[in-house]
Amino acid sequence: MRKSIATVSLSGSLTEKLTAAARAGFDGVEIFENDLLASPLSPEEIRARCADLGLTIDLYQPLRDVEAMPEEEFVRGLRRAERKFDVMRRLGTHTLLVCSNVSPHAVDDDALAAEQLSRLAGLAQESGMRIAYEALAWGRHVSTYDHAWRIVERAAHPALGVCLDSFHILSRGSDPKGTADIPGEKIFFLQLADAPLMAMDVLQWSRHYRCFPGQGGLDVPSLVRHAVNAGYRGPLSLEVFNDVFRQADAGSTAVDALRSLIALEESADISPLPAPAAPTGVAFAEIAAVDPLPVTTLLAALGFRRTGRHTGEPVDLWAQGDARILVNHGTGTRGDGPSLTAIGLETPDPHSAARRAESLLAPVLPRRRGGDDVPLDAVAAPDGTELFFCATRRPGHPDWTADFMAAADLTAASDERRDPSPAGSLTGVDHLALTQPWHHFDEAVLFHRAVLGLRPHESVDLADPYGLFRSRAMTGARGTPRLVLNLAPGPAPGTRTRAQHIALTTDDITAAARRVRAAGAELLKIPANYYDDLDARYEFAPGTLDAYRELGILYDRDEHGGEFHHCYTATVGRVFFEIVQRTGGYRGYGAANAPVRLAAQRR
Amino acid sequence: MRKSIATVSLSGSLTEKLTAAARAGFDGVEIFENDLLASPLSPEEIRARCADLGLTIDLYQPLRDVEAMPEEEFVRGLRRAERKFDVMRRLGTHTLLVCSNVSPHAVDDDALAAEQLSRLAGLAQESGMRIAYEALAWGRHVSTYDHAWRIVERAAHPALGVCLDSFHILSRGSDPKGTADIPGEKIFFLQLADAPLMAMDVLQWSRHYRCFPGQGGLDVPSLVRHAVNAGYRGPLSLEVFNDVFRQADAGSTAVDALRSLIALEESADISPLPAPAAPTGVAFAEIAAVDPLPVTTLLAALGFRRTGRHTGEPVDLWAQGDARILVNHGTGTRGDGPSLTAIGLETPDPHSAARRAESLLAPVLPRRRGGDDVPLDAVAAPDGTELFFCATRRPGHPDWTADFMAAADLTAASDERRDPSPAGSLTGVDHLALTQPWHHFDEAVLFHRAVLGLRPHESVDLADPYGLFRSRAMTGARGTPRLVLNLAPGPAPGTRTRAQHIALTTDDITAAARRVRAAGAELLKIPANYYDDLDARYEFAPGTLDAYRELGILYDRDEHGGEFHHCYTATVGRVFFEIVQRTGGYRGYGAANAPVRLAAQRR
Repeated sequence: MRKSIATVSLSGSLTEKLTAAARAGFDGVEIFENDLLASPLSPEEIRARCADLGLTIDLYQPLRDVEAMPEEEFVRGLRRAERKFDVMRRLGTHTLLVCSNVSPHAVDDDALAAEQLSRLAGLAQESGMRIAYEALAWGRHVSTYDHAWRIVERAAHPALGVCLDSFHILSRGSDPKGTADIPGEKIFFLQLADAPLMAMDVLQWSRHYRCFPGQGGLDVPSLVRHAVNAGYRGPLSLEVFNDVFRQADAGSTAVDALRSLIALEESADISPLPAPAAPTGVAFAEIAAVDPLPVTTLLAALGFRRTGRHTGEPVDLWAQGDARILVNHGTGTRGDGPSLTAIGLETPDPHSAARRAESLLAPVLPRRRGGDDVPLDAVAAPDGTELFFCATRRPGHPDWTADFMAAADLTAASDERRDPSPAGSLTGVDHLALTQPWHHFDEAVLFHRAVLGLRPHESVDLADPYGLFRSRAMTGARGTPRLVLNLAPGPAPGTRTRAQHIALTTDDITAAARRVRAAGAELLKIPANYYDDLDARYEFAPGTLDAYRELGILYDRDEHGGEFHHCYTATVGRVFFEIVQRTGGYRGYGAANAPVRLAAQRR
Repeated sequence: MRKSIATVSLSGSLTEKLTAAARAGFDGVEIFENDLLASPLSPEEIRARCADLGLTIDLYQPLRDVEAMPEEEFVRGLRRAERKFDVMRRLGTHTLLVCSNVSPHAVDDDALAAEQLSRLAGLAQESGMRIAYEALAWGRHVSTYDHAWRIVERAAHPALGVCLDSFHILSRGSDPKGTADIPGEKIFFLQLADAPLMAMDVLQWSRHYRCFPGQGGLDVPSLVRHAVNAGYRGPLSLEVFNDVFRQADAGSTAVDALRSLIALEESADISPLPAPAAPTGVAFAEIAAVDPLPVTTLLAALGFRRTGRHTGEPVDLWAQGDARILVNHGTGTRGDGPSLTAIGLETPDPHSAARRAESLLAPVLPRRRGGDDVPLDAVAAPDGTELFFCATRRPGHPDWTADFMAAADLTAASDERRDPSPAGSLTGVDHLALTQPWHHFDEAVLFHRAVLGLRPHESVDLADPYGLFRSRAMTGARGTPRLVLNLAPGPAPGTRTRAQHIALTTDDITAAARRVRAAGAELLKIPANYYDDLDARYEFAPGTLDAYRELGILYDRDEHGGEFHHCYTATVGRVFFEIVQRTGGYRGYGAANAPVRLAAQRR
């Protein structure tokens, strides 16, 4: 279906909004009146600009407080409407949105509303226009879509239909099934927005917290399915009022917006996408570091060995158990110290995953590796992280490890033979935590869900000494891979709020911590008060708590008895490492310990 | 009364929090458990630090989910409590806050709750401690203060009392009158927080939106009055969870916090302050400009004349009608171009106003003027603006204008004689708009209300192309002076979001705009689309709208027929001017036009 966006959903001047919508790939726009009023472009110039950009103008919005009014006020409303039809003629658009009346002067009289809307529609028809009547959730007398439809039906004017808005319908808990009773040709327009489920005043909720479909908790696909089944063939159009989008860059918001509609078409069974090939694990994490020594020193202390060297690029492969870390010390890496720039995701069908990602507007990355490289499918996540779809050592698929020459000679041979996996060695990647850019958290969640097929878990707030972090885990169908998306408390500069981390698993946290310390790496110091509290809350086997206290091991227990043990290295550039041991089916990330950990990292 | 603050109300490490509380002048603190756990200081070191800073530790908080539990779990709770009593002994504090149980395992049985709390209190008493039991608004079975008191009364243990929390009581709409039924000695603690009135889930409201008393919509003074009448003699203690304060500088938050308690003591009739001497008008606005030419050129075009020159400082007085603007081109002015650095407020009793301000922690400014200066009472507002309390040409008071030598010779004598007040001349200051620093908006509102005695009006949201501005007018008892506090949409740098403006009145907007244009100053260009819309909404006398269109005059009408006409100059440094004409008792500031104006200023 055609895809549109209301200009109010994007930041900037009208020109910036139109450009962003067109670049993202939208077919049309709704022109929000205030955006037109504030623009120095005449309606004719806006029309020409849209035509140049390949955008149609699908709706002009809104006319307010017009129906069910005392005659004198209604006539003033008609006069206002006539001027708006003139603007619409100049814009070259034909549908005017009329919101249900919120004025204290409005009369609770459906017959009057129908009669006046019919007169308005008559006037519209004379100018070649039509009226889409929408029930605002906080309309004075008309606040549900079925009520609006009863009035439109009663008015029985060919130039009068309804506009269905998913927020107004679903925020009130109305059942969208009733939309099936509306003839498709009387659904003049379909406005779409989602919203997080919040117990709050619906007007404030609508004005500040709407988001794109798939980013909130409303069942937008079901409404769309009903409207399409009823015969609606107009555009799917986004109308989102959101304090964050108002500040965010219009270009990336528009891409996020269009992605939400493409994913919506899939979930509403309108238009299929290449099937998701959800990742099952982490193939590798890549750290870029112009000066790799601080990272490689830390990796060595963590028990990693350099096992491979890329055949064409200055990239080394470090491995331990199933954990693989690439250290890229080539040019073109970022300037603020070592940072996590790429992730390899173990994927059942890398090529299909990449095609799906491309359909969902993920930028496909040029082959980065050297000429002889195995071709790898890769896309960029909204935070710039490069995501490689991998099939490590799986027959019938290109294997990225083939690009690496064995480099076991680079580590002391004696080391190798001593003990292949001593107690406390690290066995794999538990999770990767990525701090998302300010303004783009919901976009990141939608991307990882729709593009990669990961499942978002509940958002949690983590208290940092200087504000709340928002944190949301995304996991694969069987629990792995685990990616944790974090949002720093404010847009303040400084790398501390942009830290990323790689969490590695072990079967023996105490042995692992001792081993790392013995190898010369410092572990994050945790205050004694924390251990006094652990002692007050839990009973430990003799000596256990002393070891935790000595090594800086944090502990959490879930309500089912699952346990989580974890400790942290120092931060190198933007990156630090966590070592974790999970037992008893513990599924979280030790959120209860985050305030203590964050405070310790601030010191 | 003694004044305390919970450490959770301030940002930073525990040491930073304690230091900020002590510097502001608090007598004590509540130690929030997570702050202790995250601190590298031992309880003994925290105790010593507090003693050094002159702070008592008035409460340790909180113990959760302890009462009305199955026996086995209660015993685990007792064990936990014993360890906490040990921590409290080391801290040298005696009162432990116990919040009403939220656990799904809690039993709805007041007798059990009373019996277990009595056992807990017995244990506390053995360690010289006592228990303050508080009903959380979202407690599982106990969520009102009268219910908590019934349980405490039933337990009848000398070491068990209640903690009253204004948020938990008032957020549920409970009547605080019932607190009079609680014997004063059984009110062990009084926690205070306000909150803006919001229709939302009470737990989210409490965790993210609490604010200091006087900054929200709860009747905190009434609760305090009841508690004090009941005989409560403990500290007034602030416990505020607020996403903004978590990020703000702890030092200024602590001052804001203590100011709120001082003002609360006045409104609860506990401790009087020097009576407010609310300002009645604007004596002057002062612009600092190292290079004054762009400002003085604009002032001249606006019809101002330089009428005075300071006797000791490089400050000129520019006047027109009752509007007076000082241009300070001395050293020590700010670097980002001309900015509004000081305001003279016409005040019935300047000396008393300054004494009140000082009692409310406003920094008193050193005499800035030269040696022969008339002594002036002045304080700094939270945004750094210097506020002078003035009695312009009022007998019996020092007159600031006496510092200025007549300088009419500096303007062309012919100009003077031509017409003393031609049509469209400016007659005075309508309002001053000041953009407040990010994180300090509520503080600014409280300051202007409590310190200056101005009345805050409703907050309004203004749509800028790159986010929502929050705007709140503060006015004197008779409507003047009018100060408008604005909050920019984000903490982004750049002077555009830190703009300040001076609005000047005229009796004839069209003549004023023509006059200014004829004098060579540009007025802000307003799009033609805006005027097409005005034409659709209102009927104007012939020619009026054409003139508005030509001159960039904006128009608004309120529901009572009051009218507002306004236009804008270009921005110089951080400052621009607005010319306004009010008729028919219009009280607003043309908020409906703000999106158009802000978009025009962005171009």
